[in-house]
Amino acid sequence: MINEHLFATILAGGSGQRFWPLSRELSPKQLLSMFGTESLIAQAIHRIAPLVVHPSSIAITTNERLFDELRNHLIAQPDEGLHHVRYIIEPVPRNTAPAIALAAATFVAEDEDAIMVVLPSDHLLENGELWVDCITAAAAAAADDYLVTIGIRPTRPETGYGYIHAADPLPDYAVGDARPHVVGEFVEKPDRERAEQFVSGGEHLWNAGIFVMKASRVLQELESAGGEISRIGEVVRWIASLPADERSSERVRDEFASLPSVSIDTAVMERSRRVAVIPASLRWSDVGSLMALESVAEQDAAGNVRCGRGVDVDSTGTIVYSTDRLVATLGVQDLIVVDTADATLVLPKERAQDVRAVVEALKAAGAREVVEPKVSLRPWGSWTSLLKSDGYQIKLLEVKPRARLSLQLHEHRSEHWVVVAGTALVTRGEECVSVGVNESTYIPVGTVHRLENSGTEPLRVIEVQVGDYVGEDDIVRMEDDWERGER
Amino acid sequence: MINEHLFATILAGGSGQRFWPLSRELSPKQLLSMFGTESLIAQAIHRIAPLVVHPSSIAITTNERLFDELRNHLIAQPDEGLHHVRYIIEPVPRNTAPAIALAAATFVAEDEDAIMVVLPSDHLLENGELWVDCITAAAAAAADDYLVTIGIRPTRPETGYGYIHAADPLPDYAVGDARPHVVGEFVEKPDRERAEQFVSGGEHLWNAGIFVMKASRVLQELESAGGEISRIGEVVRWIASLPADERSSERVRDEFASLPSVSIDTAVMERSRRVAVIPASLRWSDVGSLMALESVAEQDAAGNVRCGRGVDVDSTGTIVYSTDRLVATLGVQDLIVVDTADATLVLPKERAQDVRAVVEALKAAGAREVVEPKVSLRPWGSWTSLLKSDGYQIKLLEVKPRARLSLQLHEHRSEHWVVVAGTALVTRGEECVSVGVNESTYIPVGTVHRLENSGTEPLRVIEVQVGDYVGEDDIVRMEDDWERGER
Repeated sequence: MINEHLFATILAGGSGQRFWPLSRELSPKQLLSMFGTESLIAQAIHRIAPLVVHPSSIAITTNERLFDELRNHLIAQPDEGLHHVRYIIEPVPRNTAPAIALAAATFVAEDEDAIMVVLPSDHLLENGELWVDCITAAAAAAADDYLVTIGIRPTRPETGYGYIHAADPLPDYAVGDARPHVVGEFVEKPDRERAEQFVSGGEHLWNAGIFVMKASRVLQELESAGGEISRIGEVVRWIASLPADERSSERVRDEFASLPSVSIDTAVMERSRRVAVIPASLRWSDVGSLMALESVAEQDAAGNVRCGRGVDVDSTGTIVYSTDRLVATLGVQDLIVVDTADATLVLPKERAQDVRAVVEALKAAGAREVVEPKVSLRPWGSWTSLLKSDGYQIKLLEVKPRARLSLQLHEHRSEHWVVVAGTALVTRGEECVSVGVNESTYIPVGTVHRLENSGTEPLRVIEVQVGDYVGEDDIVRMEDDWERGER
Repeated sequence: MINEHLFATILAGGSGQRFWPLSRELSPKQLLSMFGTESLIAQAIHRIAPLVVHPSSIAITTNERLFDELRNHLIAQPDEGLHHVRYIIEPVPRNTAPAIALAAATFVAEDEDAIMVVLPSDHLLENGELWVDCITAAAAAAADDYLVTIGIRPTRPETGYGYIHAADPLPDYAVGDARPHVVGEFVEKPDRERAEQFVSGGEHLWNAGIFVMKASRVLQELESAGGEISRIGEVVRWIASLPADERSSERVRDEFASLPSVSIDTAVMERSRRVAVIPASLRWSDVGSLMALESVAEQDAAGNVRCGRGVDVDSTGTIVYSTDRLVATLGVQDLIVVDTADATLVLPKERAQDVRAVVEALKAAGAREVVEPKVSLRPWGSWTSLLKSDGYQIKLLEVKPRARLSLQLHEHRSEHWVVVAGTALVTRGEECVSVGVNESTYIPVGTVHRLENSGTEPLRVIEVQVGDYVGEDDIVRMEDDWERGER
């Protein structure tokens, strides 16, 4: 049921360190696609898209660093709806309150009565009839100035989550099985005993980070908080009033950086006197650790889960997830082995929450594997780095039928292209030539060029880059089917 | 002390399945170079080279499949002595008795008084003064028709080895601390209790597979054994009498295949009445399992050993060996993680003896990773396969200064070469051109060609192979600095 005042912001600024090596700083958890048929962020968009007027009512809130990756990912998807979402760039990361406030100010500037749904970009959530009823009921309560959360009925005494106590009912807003309650209290990470009481008591719900609120109300709550927090509302209103091209200015960055780094829970939900929760028995997972991989394949008789090439002898309760290489295990118990093209991680299941410590250690050691993925999805297809060294890099480019890269040039590298599958149409300076299998061409440094798949089969090109610098950011775009920036 | 009648055969037909994924069928354990400054087989050659007249008195006994790999490896080493060893090819693998007999017959044909040292190619062994004295004493006893073994004084009650009982001394042959004894008995893999008695008793020694015997005597022992075993001596004498170019005939293969598959211990040592052993306190290891990796780096305070890129958080007693990728471990105990360019193996230390089961499972699954390595050493340098797919393969070729590949052609593939470091001299049909960094050339299918490093720095070339077949055996050699065969 479409609500014309409904907007949504999907929070996609996190890098998902706990999912390394599957996630990287530049290829975060929300892009992972092993949990279902599409990526987590595409699932998040599809969760709310049927309830808003147009995909442009959905804003992906992210940071400058991830913007390109997220946009490249979404416009590479076949569903055109995903191409038309908008993006809100946090000038600097300041936790969820400033990020959500910036989205709120953006929506209010367009519609004073805007109601915003806040969704995480990297969770799994069932989105059937109950979900639609929840959002409909929440929007009704939000229109009456309630700040509404969707609370997930707990299925186990999890001590790592926040809980929300559902107190008196608010029957006026009920829609089907979605029945809002006044929030009694928020409880952060209870001890085991308390968590068990919460599960058996039936009145406490998991805080899944899903909120439905009038956008203007969010700003008012912030402004009335006093102190530092009240500046959040002022600053985001000012940013939203600027023309688009001034929103990435130095001054905007400085002002935003001066805001307190605070969560929406602390800044708004736990302070407000008008907070509601809708208890919902929805299947939900925050995909919070590598343990989530347990769900991506069937267990064998010994409780092992395996994805990817390899064999096992005599192991029990083990998860092996491999993206492209061969992984063999012998006689291990309750381990997780995650193997990617350039990095492997081995840990016991019971340490799945601690992967961040590994990432920190790798960062301290300067390992590029915490930042860059080896395969990068692009709107036109993908590239895989086969070898990167001082002065050269080898890539496999895969270009979808009828797709083309931007018209571009590089200031520091030349490129040799050898076609190994399909047929390429290559623009090179003034000329345009067809290059077939077992043919090659050369793009000298500084030459404007474009690679296009003119056929109906995937095009595969081996690219040998040679130059004093072979980084991704040496690219000047003249023309692009996806309107990506100059760099 | 050089003995003019001394010959040696180094048994190098094994593939070392227990060392997968570091060893492969086509890159066996004897080529591993992490145990010391050179490969195990080079160490084996250097162990005996100072005691023989010329490196050609040393024969590497191997099979047809491994011959190229072993020879490529040895002629790629800087020490020229390693280039001049000879090779004896077992027509088909028939265990150690036929293999050693074939070497014996070959040596006898050259020198009736030949004394042969039999050495494994994939063990570690201390080779100081005591070692030289052992061989000298053994050669003296062998000249008197003793079949002599070098027995290693046990340092632990190992139940996986064979033991040799040293009975009455043979003081006539003693040299320094090397004092031969008559062999009382051979004991195969004793139980724990008996192994402990052997260690404390001091009269039992590990059978390390090192023998010193008059070559003619080996053949006589076989011929006098009767039954099937006596055929071994006859057949190998016949093969050794053939001109070199007839030794790989179908008939030779059939005759050799008809021999019993039997070890030298069973066929000769345990039957003979004139067997001696020299007890030696030499440091020795059969490098029998991945546990041997424990010695390749210093343990940290938590008992972890690590080779290669990566980090660890909170692990204990773990071995991580990585050849080129990043491996991270978190909170694991007593594991072995071996990570190579194309395959990873994870197992507890206590299962190190069972890696063969993994290899068998991989073979059953048709995994090419049990056969081929991703990096292959060549006399001229090395190649690394970056990507192999239907119809194309990408390789990085590294050519040593002043070295060149054979003059060759391919019947099924074309090659595109892009130079990314150094300068290449390329022969292509009738022409010969210089190709520098950021330049490329193309070798059409069927064109005679040669790649040479004309400079003093290493040459690096990216090779893109395109064709209906891109296997290693599509090569016709016209001319080769290392006299490798036509194929």
